[in-house]
Amino acid sequence: MVSVDLNADLGESFGAWQMGDDDAMLTLVTSANVACGFHAGDPVTLRHSCEQAVKQGVRIGAQVGYRDLAGFGRRFIDVTPAELTADVIYQIGALQSLAHAAGSSVVYVKPHGALYNAVVNNRDQARAVAEAVHAVDPGLAVLGLSGSVFFTEAERLGLRTVPEAFADRSYRPDGQLVSRRERNAVLHDPDEIAERVAMMVQSGRVVAVDGSTIPITVESICVHGDSRDAVQIATAVRERLLTEGVLLAPFA
Amino acid sequence: MVSVDLNADLGESFGAWQMGDDDAMLTLVTSANVACGFHAGDPVTLRHSCEQAVKQGVRIGAQVGYRDLAGFGRRFIDVTPAELTADVIYQIGALQSLAHAAGSSVVYVKPHGALYNAVVNNRDQARAVAEAVHAVDPGLAVLGLSGSVFFTEAERLGLRTVPEAFADRSYRPDGQLVSRRERNAVLHDPDEIAERVAMMVQSGRVVAVDGSTIPITVESICVHGDSRDAVQIATAVRERLLTEGVLLAPFA
Amino acid sequence: MVSVDLNADLGESFGAWQMGDDDAMLTLVTSANVACGFHAGDPVTLRHSCEQAVKQGVRIGAQVGYRDLAGFGRRFIDVTPAELTADVIYQIGALQSLAHAAGSSVVYVKPHGALYNAVVNNRDQARAVAEAVHAVDPGLAVLGLSGSVFFTEAERLGLRTVPEAFADRSYRPDGQLVSRRERNAVLHDPDEIAERVAMMVQSGRVVAVDGSTIPITVESICVHGDSRDAVQIATAVRERLLTEGVLLAPFA
Amino acid sequence: MVSVDLNADLGESFGAWQMGDDDAMLTLVTSANVACGFHAGDPVTLRHSCEQAVKQGVRIGAQVGYRDLAGFGRRFIDVTPAELTADVIYQIGALQSLAHAAGSSVVYVKPHGALYNAVVNNRDQARAVAEAVHAVDPGLAVLGLSGSVFFTEAERLGLRTVPEAFADRSYRPDGQLVSRRERNAVLHDPDEIAERVAMMVQSGRVVAVDGSTIPITVESICVHGDSRDAVQIATAVRERLLTEGVLLAPFA
Repeated sequence: MVSVDLNADLGESFGAWQMGDDDAMLTLVTSANVACGFHAGDPVTLRHSCEQAVKQGVRIGAQVGYRDLAGFGRRFIDVTPAELTADVIYQIGALQSLAHAAGSSVVYVKPHGALYNAVVNNRDQARAVAEAVHAVDPGLAVLGLSGSVFFTEAERLGLRTVPEAFADRSYRPDGQLVSRRERNAVLHDPDEIAERVAMMVQSGRVVAVDGSTIPITVESICVHGDSRDAVQIATAVRERLLTEGVLLAPFA
Repeated sequence: MVSVDLNADLGESFGAWQMGDDDAMLTLVTSANVACGFHAGDPVTLRHSCEQAVKQGVRIGAQVGYRDLAGFGRRFIDVTPAELTADVIYQIGALQSLAHAAGSSVVYVKPHGALYNAVVNNRDQARAVAEAVHAVDPGLAVLGLSGSVFFTEAERLGLRTVPEAFADRSYRPDGQLVSRRERNAVLHDPDEIAERVAMMVQSGRVVAVDGSTIPITVESICVHGDSRDAVQIATAVRERLLTEGVLLAPFA
Repeated sequence: MVSVDLNADLGESFGAWQMGDDDAMLTLVTSANVACGFHAGDPVTLRHSCEQAVKQGVRIGAQVGYRDLAGFGRRFIDVTPAELTADVIYQIGALQSLAHAAGSSVVYVKPHGALYNAVVNNRDQARAVAEAVHAVDPGLAVLGLSGSVFFTEAERLGLRTVPEAFADRSYRPDGQLVSRRERNAVLHDPDEIAERVAMMVQSGRVVAVDGSTIPITVESICVHGDSRDAVQIATAVRERLLTEGVLLAPFA
Repeated sequence: MVSVDLNADLGESFGAWQMGDDDAMLTLVTSANVACGFHAGDPVTLRHSCEQAVKQGVRIGAQVGYRDLAGFGRRFIDVTPAELTADVIYQIGALQSLAHAAGSSVVYVKPHGALYNAVVNNRDQARAVAEAVHAVDPGLAVLGLSGSVFFTEAERLGLRTVPEAFADRSYRPDGQLVSRRERNAVLHDPDEIAERVAMMVQSGRVVAVDGSTIPITVESICVHGDSRDAVQIATAVRERLLTEGVLLAPFA
């Protein structure tokens, strides 16, 4: 039986500002990438997200990012490797503590936003993040892009790497994501997205923007948690996969 | 043989801004209250302080405070208990992770600045901090003022409480600290301070501002780490205690 | 002809986090209390709010607060008068510059959240805010509560004080607001709120929580901009006042 | 008579953290680049620096930077032009208000740290800063590097550009600064620095790292305010220029 993990970014509210509907999303996903306070997520929010994840039996990962609340972690920052490693150790530890208080623990790490993009190619930052994860716990897995420098660095340290695909993003023929600055970077129709995810999971392929069909390695599917239609899209993806007989379960 | 712990606030630099001389202080104290990033301490600084503490065989505690870099945690903030508990869990966890990466661990918690003063009498905030410590690890000790509401709340949860005295602060006849807003609140002469600490440790007494001698319960002596004369005062206190035949060792 | 000003808190989004619907509210009010970045409002948001205010012919005021993004300015902070005065001068100037770039200017100042409540009774903080306003421009008006220490201090410096009433808040028999921690502190029914405002404006009276009718001095009515029903309530208040023949116009 | 301006970065303390000796530096320079709170400078510090500048008859400029206290503005951030323009308008306005309260005004703008370096070549960010300055007041001058894209963009908008040279930095044969990551990027000997500055001002030339003598356009000399030897170096530069008969005066 084919099995896949479903992950989403959660815990992204901050103080009086709400972002997404964590309680609803946690009934749909199998892994929660909970923010860690540097680009989003105040401690009360993070604690609540961890508690809700525990209630729904959802696994917790640390969604680490640049220290940039005003930019929501979406702006590249030219931090030094030493700064980035310390920042990431700090963030994982903070979330571990809140997850522990909720009766769970952090089992994987996923970079967020501009850091996610940076570690695809920026070796210094990729290594800095991988070393942080390893310093906290070599048993932690990392979620990211197959073929990224981040995965190379993580594997060099013996970390388990979990390749993911994005449910609602367009792919280039070379397997990279179409930049958000381009048209058609993001898909919006729930049925189209669900159809696409089913193909990724069942056949390991996806149709790129140029119409060609390319292979894609995927152990986890990322659905967005912060868009207006997040719950609707995640529901469509989930139901389609269940209809296809795919088992939704955390990655091994 | 009489034994006492010597603690100081460390890890209080932030980015380009230096505070105190951690490397020197860590050759003098037995316990380091390392800041956790909310009122002071960027992750690179905190990591360095933890690594130096390990090198010097100094024990690590979490110096938790209000989220207030601009005020250095010295301004009371009317946070709710739920916010404070989550904030403190977050801070302890962040430091635990950095201490772990340095080959050590956090073994106690000490509130900082305005939070230290608040939990002497403010039951809601005192309980919130105690519950945070307990939620992270019931084996953590708390450092604070004997007779404080914080200790009552901590003991109610079964936490180990460690009463401390301040080397360079004046005491009122009722055993409370003279407010910093008053004259003579802080002592500056290293010899006088060393003499005073020797009396506290050897006889459990201190001379209050009105000239009366009062009893004082002390398992740890706090020397300040951020003043200009910090290293000189800590050295004087340390040498005087060793001369008296007092064993300087972490609290049990 | 009776005339009244209608004000609302705007510019309260921060980065990726949205708060309220500024564009809609700006078609309804006559004065916009635009946040200044310390408790809410990033510069892009503030600039947009100023530009929209100019388009709609709405006057701009500076909504100043404590430096507390995580608490949205709703938590009392025991800042010193010197800190508060400098913080408020800074905030007003920042907004002035953005208002100027949008072709307008800041013409009044209104404290926000916990600072609003503090300056009702806390003389040190009230004076600190009044002195900041005066230092920036003695021609600036201040919006606040009639009978507050803030007004006393502002008038002592010769500042124009504009008393306001809250459309959706309950009043005690002594004219103070019922605390948000109590039941019935906030009204939710748009028709009831509109009816209440009409009575305030037309007869200078309001029914307090105990059923008694008390006098109320009002040159401006505050409608909230951040609640779910903000636009609906502001619309109801506006239409009711127009129906009554009241002129909606900025205070003189 | 030859005349030159002497500028330094001031107002860079933050809360409890001190940086540099503003009071001493203000007796030496003719223009003070006062920080604006995004990368350094709390409002109390900024207000004090403005007041001291007024006392010493020193002109005030706005030292604007990225929103990055933890990095002291020394890390490039990939902000959008819209964000950068709004951020810079905000910062200039905040300082204007504090300068005004001190009886002075902001008369020029100088980007700080990584932003200074970015606008040498990054046209989007250079234009964004220039547009911000122009939006606040077309009469403001900008301080920067001769030949930079920043100057091209500023001049396109009609802004007055003031080319500066660095007293203690090495130059490449092409007139650019030697990167701080390289050896010999920074000079430390006060006499050597003073000698160098005298040559820059008197003959418009400087010896580059390869030994060649290159032309340099300079209306202002930047001395650093935050290094350990800042006061000593500024004193040496000032005395040497006075000995040479150079008039130290703000740029026209």
